Amino acid sequence: MSDRGLLLVLSGPSGVGKGTVCKALRESMPDLVYSVSATTRSPRAGEVEGVNYFFTSKEDFRRMIEQDELLEWAEYVGNYYGTPRKFVEETLDSGRDVILEIEVQGALQVKKKFPQGIFLFLAPPDLAELENRIVGRGTESEETIRHRMEMARTEIELMDQYDYVVVNDQIECACSRIQSIITAEHLKKERQIHKFRKWLKEVE
Amino acid sequence: MSDRGLLLVLSGPSGVGKGTVCKALRESMPDLVYSVSATTRSPRAGEVEGVNYFFTSKEDFRRMIEQDELLEWAEYVGNYYGTPRKFVEETLDSGRDVILEIEVQGALQVKKKFPQGIFLFLAPPDLAELENRIVGRGTESEETIRHRMEMARTEIELMDQYDYVVVNDQIECACSRIQSIITAEHLKKERQIHKFRKWLKEVE
Repeated sequence: MSDRGLLLVLSGPSGVGKGTVCKALRESMPDLVYSVSATTRSPRAGEVEGVNYFFTSKEDFRRMIEQDELLEWAEYVGNYYGTPRKFVEETLDSGRDVILEIEVQGALQVKKKFPQGIFLFLAPPDLAELENRIVGRGTESEETIRHRMEMARTEIELMDQYDYVVVNDQIECACSRIQSIITAEHLKKERQIHKFRKWLKEVE
Repeated sequence: MSDRGLLLVLSGPSGVGKGTVCKALRESMPDLVYSVSATTRSPRAGEVEGVNYFFTSKEDFRRMIEQDELLEWAEYVGNYYGTPRKFVEETLDSGRDVILEIEVQGALQVKKKFPQGIFLFLAPPDLAELENRIVGRGTESEETIRHRMEMARTEIELMDQYDYVVVNDQIECACSRIQSIITAEHLKKERQIHKFRKWLKEVE
């Protein structure tokens, strides 16, 4: 039996470039499986069931919520979106790693249901950039700045719930850091020692 | 202030290739600082104080043991060898990573004194190889095989004390895995979040 895969949860503040990094990462790691969401919205032209989304009726979606079949879910402009646990579990069982790209609130829901996931916080390129987002061009009202400060503070406190912080300065660098994290996580002793123990038993 | 460096402890059973991997790693990562041992043996031609070893009298070495100035030490054919804590701490404080290549018993001593180190177990290339080491060429006595089995069992149980298991199938692959581990360890949230918190305080 091959080892179980890892669930990588790529998250971070809005506008940080989660989608771009996730896309680049999947291109450089074709074995990485993208977690397919369930949604109640109608398919758009070209969207394929099971590839872009699992298209679901509202009734079915509500049943999935009730039966705890979603790692996280949210309602957005009248439709439901969520991460079916079954797809993730089956892919991990097959030995492949899964990546889930998601905003911060969703990631924290996933962490409650699947704490063994690897939680990656994608952070803005540098603190100057974060500062720009807060202070703006000097034309912002005090209230706007205070509001943005509050947002930054909340984001940084949520960072504390994650396993790793990856700065998105350049897409290639961010991808390469994430690849290192995936490699290192697979090499953790807890994920390796059972092979040696199993083999010792067989040789006995 | 730059971040504190990491102490990487590269260890594993004798004959697994610790020295070769450590040398290759240092060549590919010139910023990685090699932990210099103290010894009471006399310098050989070409050996430089503070580069190859810290050459020490037996009296001084015994004082270092008593004053807990060594992360580990051992006696070998009438001489002492050990890892001075001061050199490691000062290098880490300067923001550089230190690598310590050491046999398993020494690594476990280091773990007691410096549990925040990253402990890497270098494992034989594959289980077939380990099996060869045990069963030999079919000409070994039952007692030899039993003894080797005991050794393998002990090594694998000691593996449990480490953070990562790196298989040494090819030197380049082993080095690249270790580099991934170093990258990932630096990206751990505990080692990143303080920068963001500090900055938030400054902006306030």
